[in-house]
Amino acid sequence: GTGADNDLYINQAIVFIEDAIQYRSINHRMDSKSLWLYRWYYSRTCQWILSLTITIILALAFFEKPSSLTITSDVRYRLPAWNPPCGLTESIELLCFLVFMVDVSVKSYLIGWEEFWKNKWLMAYILTLIVSLTDWIVSLSFFCTEDVRIRRILRPFFLLQNSSMMKKTLKSINSTLPEMASVVLLLAVHLSLFTMFAMLLFARAKDGQQDKEWVGYFRNLPDSLTSLLVLLTTANNPDVMIPAYSKNRAYSIFFILFTVLGNLFLMNLLTAIIYNQFRGYLLKSVQSSLFRRRLGIRAAFEVLSSLREAPANAQQSYVSTEALLRVLQKVEMDSRCKQAIMRSLKMCSCDQLSAAQFQKLFEELDKDAIKQHPPSPEYQSHFMQKMQFVFGHPYFGYLGNVVALANIVSVCVVLVLDADKQPSERDDFFLRAINCFFILYYLLEMLLKILAMGLKRYLSYPSNRFDGLLTVILLVLEIATFAVYGFPHPGWRPEFMGLLSLWDMVRLVNMLIVFRFLRIIPNMKFMALVVTTLLDLVKNLRAFAGILVVVFYAFAIAGIMLFKGAVVPLGNTSESVWGTCKKSLPFFFFLFLVQISFDIKKVVALYFKEKCDFMASFGHYQAEVIYSLLCLSSVNLICRWAKIYFVAWWLISSVIWVNLFVALLLENFIHKWDRRCHREPLSDIEYQRTVELMFRDVLEEPTEEELMEKLHHHPHLQLCR
Amino acid sequence: GTGADNDLYINQAIVFIEDAIQYRSINHRMDSKSLWLYRWYYSRTCQWILSLTITIILALAFFEKPSSLTITSDVRYRLPAWNPPCGLTESIELLCFLVFMVDVSVKSYLIGWEEFWKNKWLMAYILTLIVSLTDWIVSLSFFCTEDVRIRRILRPFFLLQNSSMMKKTLKSINSTLPEMASVVLLLAVHLSLFTMFAMLLFARAKDGQQDKEWVGYFRNLPDSLTSLLVLLTTANNPDVMIPAYSKNRAYSIFFILFTVLGNLFLMNLLTAIIYNQFRGYLLKSVQSSLFRRRLGIRAAFEVLSSLREAPANAQQSYVSTEALLRVLQKVEMDSRCKQAIMRSLKMCSCDQLSAAQFQKLFEELDKDAIKQHPPSPEYQSHFMQKMQFVFGHPYFGYLGNVVALANIVSVCVVLVLDADKQPSERDDFFLRAINCFFILYYLLEMLLKILAMGLKRYLSYPSNRFDGLLTVILLVLEIATFAVYGFPHPGWRPEFMGLLSLWDMVRLVNMLIVFRFLRIIPNMKFMALVVTTLLDLVKNLRAFAGILVVVFYAFAIAGIMLFKGAVVPLGNTSESVWGTCKKSLPFFFFLFLVQISFDIKKVVALYFKEKCDFMASFGHYQAEVIYSLLCLSSVNLICRWAKIYFVAWWLISSVIWVNLFVALLLENFIHKWDRRCHREPLSDIEYQRTVELMFRDVLEEPTEEELMEKLHHHPHLQLCR
Repeated sequence: GTGADNDLYINQAIVFIEDAIQYRSINHRMDSKSLWLYRWYYSRTCQWILSLTITIILALAFFEKPSSLTITSDVRYRLPAWNPPCGLTESIELLCFLVFMVDVSVKSYLIGWEEFWKNKWLMAYILTLIVSLTDWIVSLSFFCTEDVRIRRILRPFFLLQNSSMMKKTLKSINSTLPEMASVVLLLAVHLSLFTMFAMLLFARAKDGQQDKEWVGYFRNLPDSLTSLLVLLTTANNPDVMIPAYSKNRAYSIFFILFTVLGNLFLMNLLTAIIYNQFRGYLLKSVQSSLFRRRLGIRAAFEVLSSLREAPANAQQSYVSTEALLRVLQKVEMDSRCKQAIMRSLKMCSCDQLSAAQFQKLFEELDKDAIKQHPPSPEYQSHFMQKMQFVFGHPYFGYLGNVVALANIVSVCVVLVLDADKQPSERDDFFLRAINCFFILYYLLEMLLKILAMGLKRYLSYPSNRFDGLLTVILLVLEIATFAVYGFPHPGWRPEFMGLLSLWDMVRLVNMLIVFRFLRIIPNMKFMALVVTTLLDLVKNLRAFAGILVVVFYAFAIAGIMLFKGAVVPLGNTSESVWGTCKKSLPFFFFLFLVQISFDIKKVVALYFKEKCDFMASFGHYQAEVIYSLLCLSSVNLICRWAKIYFVAWWLISSVIWVNLFVALLLENFIHKWDRRCHREPLSDIEYQRTVELMFRDVLEEPTEEELMEKLHHHPHLQLCR
Repeated sequence: GTGADNDLYINQAIVFIEDAIQYRSINHRMDSKSLWLYRWYYSRTCQWILSLTITIILALAFFEKPSSLTITSDVRYRLPAWNPPCGLTESIELLCFLVFMVDVSVKSYLIGWEEFWKNKWLMAYILTLIVSLTDWIVSLSFFCTEDVRIRRILRPFFLLQNSSMMKKTLKSINSTLPEMASVVLLLAVHLSLFTMFAMLLFARAKDGQQDKEWVGYFRNLPDSLTSLLVLLTTANNPDVMIPAYSKNRAYSIFFILFTVLGNLFLMNLLTAIIYNQFRGYLLKSVQSSLFRRRLGIRAAFEVLSSLREAPANAQQSYVSTEALLRVLQKVEMDSRCKQAIMRSLKMCSCDQLSAAQFQKLFEELDKDAIKQHPPSPEYQSHFMQKMQFVFGHPYFGYLGNVVALANIVSVCVVLVLDADKQPSERDDFFLRAINCFFILYYLLEMLLKILAMGLKRYLSYPSNRFDGLLTVILLVLEIATFAVYGFPHPGWRPEFMGLLSLWDMVRLVNMLIVFRFLRIIPNMKFMALVVTTLLDLVKNLRAFAGILVVVFYAFAIAGIMLFKGAVVPLGNTSESVWGTCKKSLPFFFFLFLVQISFDIKKVVALYFKEKCDFMASFGHYQAEVIYSLLCLSSVNLICRWAKIYFVAWWLISSVIWVNLFVALLLENFIHKWDRRCHREPLSDIEYQRTVELMFRDVLEEPTEEELMEKLHHHPHLQLCR
């Protein structure tokens, strides 16, 4: 019937508008049941459950068998880590797989079979699930004793496929690969030519005396290649040339040439190439988001215009205001936007809307959200008004900053004075007394500000929230200290009581005071600019960070699997040392941190040194010599694999990822900087900026033709016209 | 008289045009004698003498007292360096000062007294000369025994003031300083807040057991600051956190936060800021050069138009063709340009030139110099024509590349096979025989190419010149080897004869073969692009490199002066060890190389370790214990100065200079890349590009009003109109 049709159209319009708001693709099934399923699938609860599942399956690695969730990383002091019984993590895993299976079937159903065959991501999703389930069954049938678990490496894929931003970014990175490969090839040529040159230059001399360089670094082809590769990462920069340099100063020319060409030119060229490729990346992605939004709105207009209630008009299609109001009431969107659209719909006071008017109504979505602070309370008494003026004035805030600085300085002075004292000589009274005074001032400042601004207005500023929260925590800590240890007096050194010692309490308070000092940031112009740039960057970087997590997770699991058998077990003890300290995820996370510093040699050294250290310190109690020898031989054994593994990790994490990061930072910063110059330097209105808004001036509006062209190719929607 | 006037005008026009060609300022005296002086001053001989003088005075540091121009840097094996007698370097210095005095007086006279008082560079020049001369007199009156020689630090100023590019670059850097200072301030705030936090976090524990972190890195304020500063350079990245991490894994959060914020964000922010500031730098400098050129041409036009011969015209001024021809004959310029201008002047066949026509004539100067290769010889014989076709074909070149690759591979294989052999087991016959064959092929290739292309055409390609030169050198080396050691045969191991042993000869030949392999570069498209970008960059980087040399020279001399008294002499021997190995310029040049890797801690370590090593190895023969103790105490003594010195050097050389370099590389590369996309991918014409030409499409022509405005403010030229 017509009524059912109309309901369908209304529902379609609702979904289209929600798609537009969320920048989603509109290519999905459009019948009533599918629409219901679609809205259910994209409801907050469902998406939240999906995210939770992904988090759980990724987090499982921390609890699974080679787990090391212990406080200390030193095997000598720590208790054995808790190993879950076979079947516990596996059943959680199965639950997650079930959720994913529901997810993939709903998704596949919604986009329709024809589209499904074109969608490589969905196919890969299904394949991953099948492989994982097979592996799971194998694992259970071996009672969790099998060594290789392929499904662990596949886990990050679930994170990857769930984010459209990450998929888009991956596509971008993919298109940069050919040029990156060229530079990497160039680097390889550079490296191999210099290696040959070095082998000829630092060849074994006939007299055994002078060939320190040959013995140390250029003994054979793999050694030479490694030496120069590590020189490219600058990790062994002075060491590698010292023997040659002390033989003849002219040898340094070789190393200078290599470093300047490789490090200064080729490495930075990589930065330039990646930056060049990513210059348009942000703009392009924002542009395609805009297109999706306009398309969704337009689609909503088209379905609404085919409602029977609307008068047939040969020339142009119209949408009745009433229908739009019905749609708007059911759409899930930001209430501020909804109200603004309703308001302008009423103000327009027309009965029908053309496509352009319809589109214009929804431009409210693109606008800056102007954050309005609640008004200050209005006091009757003259005295209160004066108080309000004084304590609401910015200068009162500056005074607070000065006091915070004074506090920092006093803490610093006490620290310097106490640096060389024994803990028993230390008198905590002075610092305690000073801190009491300062914390009282902070409390007073907070109360006065609340008095002047009213609680609501006070809390509407993020800096005040930060400030107030820390003040309250400090106050609670102080009161707790008083309650446990009593009031301070000179020479006051109470015994340990309660959870923390007095000294720890004082340290905690001081740390919070240092942390509270960050409140000065919004008051310094340049700092505020930098901090907002960084925050923007973090927003734009989420996709990159996600991809990094994916790569890193895969690498960590691969590392655990690769280097598991590295030490031949001589009884259970040695296996347990090696197993618990090295085969665990935290260690590989730790590697990442080290990798930030571009330092491959150190990682390898650390990797082997720590291992040997632990082995040696363990062996100290048992059979020192045997373990040390064992350790050395195993180092040689896995050295080759480790080299390849770490070189790959170095290339991905520091060379490519850091350069991507620099490119994004440049892009963001330069845009921000340009805008700062155009704008008023000090505007009172706080904008809540999004990436989309940053580019508003340069974005191109999609044309009517493009939109209609796209709509006519919709796989599940037959437009009347 | 009119004739004299006319001569003056002609001379003025000549100088103006020469100024335009060289992009010089035209604000100098314009009377006959001054013009003669001006042309003499800017003649090649004079400028060459000036450059030579600057080179000599800078190079003096290598020969002056703490000189170390020895082959080995190891004090145990080397002879004492030659110390010039007092008065030798000083008299050379005096000669240089005399040249500089002539230079400064001529320069001051030529720009006129009024301009002189506005020119800060000239004032500084005079001041530097006065200070240097005073210091020189003091030095001689002490018979060269005085310690502090201020004039040495001032020397690089002579280099700086002689280059207008460097002065311009310095101005640009100067204008970037405020923003760089903001980021450095931010870094300082970051560092100090984290230092306080670290001191509170890693405070001395009451039980002495667990405070390894405190003992090692955070004992007091200077220690903590140093630890974190070095962490910012990533030199101690894993080490600094190992004790804390092994106590509690959560401590790593502190270091992760510090590294990510400081290293990843703030350091890269510096890159972004510097890039942002320097984005327009190249364009702006090229734009101002263009203005100078147009101004010079216009000035020449104006003076020529006031020649009496020219007919008076109220509306517009004209220049007679004849006058221009007279000027052109005397102007010193590229003969190709001169001929082109003459040709178009004749083709124009008009008697008078308007300003626009005049300007247009000289646009030849801005054009690409199209390099034309001489034609191939034309052979009569059919056989020779076929030969010419075959050996002139690009495929013959590719074959040569393949053969070169095969040679490289064979050398590589032999190297790998010989790697583990004792020198006495090694049989050089195989490699020698192979190389003979390949060198014969190279010779044949060169001769056939010359046959096909003719000698002139062959030599007109840079790649052929490179190829031919190396082939000839290889041939000479081979013949020399035959002459000295005879023909090779299996098991052939002759005694050492002549200058080099047979093994050294073979190594030299192999190195040249590796080097010759670079001929493939022009054949690989991407490689060729990269190499041309790098060459362009080197051109644009000259000014930056000059400033780096200036800063570096000053730092090196300051280092020599600062750390001279670091070791208290215990008799002459210890002084001589320390004096000869550390107080010399090459050591500080060596530091620079190390600094390329951003690694301050290592420099300090190297600095102290080497010192102590040398001391220890020396002491081994004399009084080991005393020297070692002495060394350790002196390290503590000068540690503070060294820290400040090296931090300053790190900031300037790696933080600022490397970022400037990256900015320039980005700028150059992105321009080049954009142009590549616009252009035909493979054009046969080779352009000899200059920076000016790269920006031709974006440059703005100065307007007539701007030019005339500038001309009317010329301090020494009264225009008639």
